[in-house]
Amino acid sequence: MPIVTLLTDFGTADSYVAELKGVILSGAPGATLVDLTHEVPAGKVMAAQYVLSRAWHRFPAGTVHLVVVDPGVGTERRALAAECGGHRFVAPDNGVLSGLSPEARFVSLPIAPGISATFHGRDVFAPAAARLAGGGGGGAGGARLEDVGSAIADPVRSPLPTPLLLEGWIAGEVVYVDRFGTLITNIPGAQVRRIATIMIAETAVGSLRRTFADVASGEVVAFVGSGGTVEIAVRDGSAAQRLGFTVGAPVRAATR
Amino acid sequence: MPIVTLLTDFGTADSYVAELKGVILSGAPGATLVDLTHEVPAGKVMAAQYVLSRAWHRFPAGTVHLVVVDPGVGTERRALAAECGGHRFVAPDNGVLSGLSPEARFVSLPIAPGISATFHGRDVFAPAAARLAGGGGGGAGGARLEDVGSAIADPVRSPLPTPLLLEGWIAGEVVYVDRFGTLITNIPGAQVRRIATIMIAETAVGSLRRTFADVASGEVVAFVGSGGTVEIAVRDGSAAQRLGFTVGAPVRAATR
Amino acid sequence: MPIVTLLTDFGTADSYVAELKGVILSGAPGATLVDLTHEVPAGKVMAAQYVLSRAWHRFPAGTVHLVVVDPGVGTERRALAAECGGHRFVAPDNGVLSGLSPEARFVSLPIAPGISATFHGRDVFAPAAARLAGGGGGGAGGARLEDVGSAIADPVRSPLPTPLLLEGWIAGEVVYVDRFGTLITNIPGAQVRRIATIMIAETAVGSLRRTFADVASGEVVAFVGSGGTVEIAVRDGSAAQRLGFTVGAPVRAATR
Repeated sequence: MPIVTLLTDFGTADSYVAELKGVILSGAPGATLVDLTHEVPAGKVMAAQYVLSRAWHRFPAGTVHLVVVDPGVGTERRALAAECGGHRFVAPDNGVLSGLSPEARFVSLPIAPGISATFHGRDVFAPAAARLAGGGGGGAGGARLEDVGSAIADPVRSPLPTPLLLEGWIAGEVVYVDRFGTLITNIPGAQVRRIATIMIAETAVGSLRRTFADVASGEVVAFVGSGGTVEIAVRDGSAAQRLGFTVGAPVRAATR
Repeated sequence: MPIVTLLTDFGTADSYVAELKGVILSGAPGATLVDLTHEVPAGKVMAAQYVLSRAWHRFPAGTVHLVVVDPGVGTERRALAAECGGHRFVAPDNGVLSGLSPEARFVSLPIAPGISATFHGRDVFAPAAARLAGGGGGGAGGARLEDVGSAIADPVRSPLPTPLLLEGWIAGEVVYVDRFGTLITNIPGAQVRRIATIMIAETAVGSLRRTFADVASGEVVAFVGSGGTVEIAVRDGSAAQRLGFTVGAPVRAATR
Repeated sequence: MPIVTLLTDFGTADSYVAELKGVILSGAPGATLVDLTHEVPAGKVMAAQYVLSRAWHRFPAGTVHLVVVDPGVGTERRALAAECGGHRFVAPDNGVLSGLSPEARFVSLPIAPGISATFHGRDVFAPAAARLAGGGGGGAGGARLEDVGSAIADPVRSPLPTPLLLEGWIAGEVVYVDRFGTLITNIPGAQVRRIATIMIAETAVGSLRRTFADVASGEVVAFVGSGGTVEIAVRDGSAAQRLGFTVGAPVRAATR
């Protein structure tokens, strides 16, 4: 029983996600569908990349991950499938899969002439995901990567920014803001000196606490979040709103 | 393993959708549940009809489609089940199934006295969907249509508006606005002359482009959408907001 | 094929719900996942308790219900699993399971040192739910309650308020406001005299009608809702907004 996850910027108010799901279930009967989210801000490839990086490896090997955050739909951008760590991925070639390890293999999916120029999610990506999940021969595990496209070696790479290690400092940035307004950075918590003050731009946010419950309601707090990196939050509030920062804001901390 | 899709205006913040799902899974163990959407504007039967028309045929034959957009709940309106093209449908008799082909067969569901007057979704429609999906005898395919109600020949019909073909022109209207603010018309793209300007009321929106990526960010663009009809959008913006039109706005185009 | 329901205040925009689902499907392959809702207002245990009370018993026996509305995450609060009426529950020990009958049995889940202090949903509760659903030995039904924790007799109890029976009156309150702005009370409809006026604070809302379709659009109406208690609504509008009341507002009615 293959699992197919879905990650889009379609929202859930219209028929678009359901059309994807109908195509997948028609091509891979019995597939288990799981929404990662459909609320990626429209066209924000970097946000999609972050959400995918948090979630994909939590699923069992054999899962197919379908990503349709595709501001370039209808242009010359390629359509991809990939395999990495026993998982398969289907996505536009816009960097959204840049987080996969260097061992990942990629193929370029054929794009039939005459299909909708605005909905490759339904007409290109979902059919490929269905074949990989079990609708394309190749046995219980579905089609092999090579069955759905031609190998390529040059997928678009636009990895999430990585922090800089300086003399006694680590300098990173905010890479994602969640719906609670928590500012999630790319600074690994394990590298931060616990008693030193963390700075976001020129604003001091105190030293690392264990959890937001360690400060009073309404206070700013930094802690190592569930993704393993430094997060800046306001208890029972929004750090994004309170501090006025968003993705890209520079953050620095003293190293151990 | 039957599939049951759900289309409501309940939103997803309360327990209502979950109560439907519990009833279905109790009556049809192992059913695969798929949300079409639960964000139909409250009581908007025409919007539900449009979403259903886009999605139902993407699912495999045998699927049961449950629609609970039911502003007349508790009144004398009938409750229906229908069969069309190998799919089954359960819905209030308010026109939401008007898009099914003339070959569709309809039955009227019994409404037991004493049930909730405000939640037929849970107490009438979901149990019928569960029986059709597999909980009502009749073998692997579930109950037959005749097992769940009495045949009727006069379901409420309120089809989506169809465009008028005039001398060299086709005159239609906006039938749906999606969450991106794209104005979706009922004018089949295949009938439109490519080089002629499309008008929405007295506003010219240019000739058909291939996709919204063919114009600059912020510009208005008309193209043939993934439903096969003319759509009017603003790249990276909302045509509904920019142009000030919504469902019902007249649109006309020159014919081929 | 076990069912696992999920009830959180995570929203659906980020990766958090998907991380839970990945953990569950990794631990209990083939589980059927059903969202109750993820839109409980942040940290509102009482709202979660109400939603759970409406939905859990609609699912078949054997279902595992995972509740992660957990304002005390990272503090000393315990993590629980429970069994009641053939259903199992996993939740923080904050009163959210207070609605279970006195026969419910409870265990305290071990919390491993070194796990995330902010995401016990993923690292404590979801693995326990997966074991109960089928990933922990114990046969087709999954692990037994005793396999996942140590029996306790003193879970936090904070039941929803119950109405007071007075001389000819029943005095209750609003316990939940749904997304339509309907004020849902704890007064059982069966105890209310049909022809007497219902009062919310000092505002009269008329006697019980059968359904909101019994009044004109925009009018206030009281009826016995689908949960069996008195609800106060505005047809095609929001009673919460119109009347200015929310959870806790006193409501009284004459008894039969």
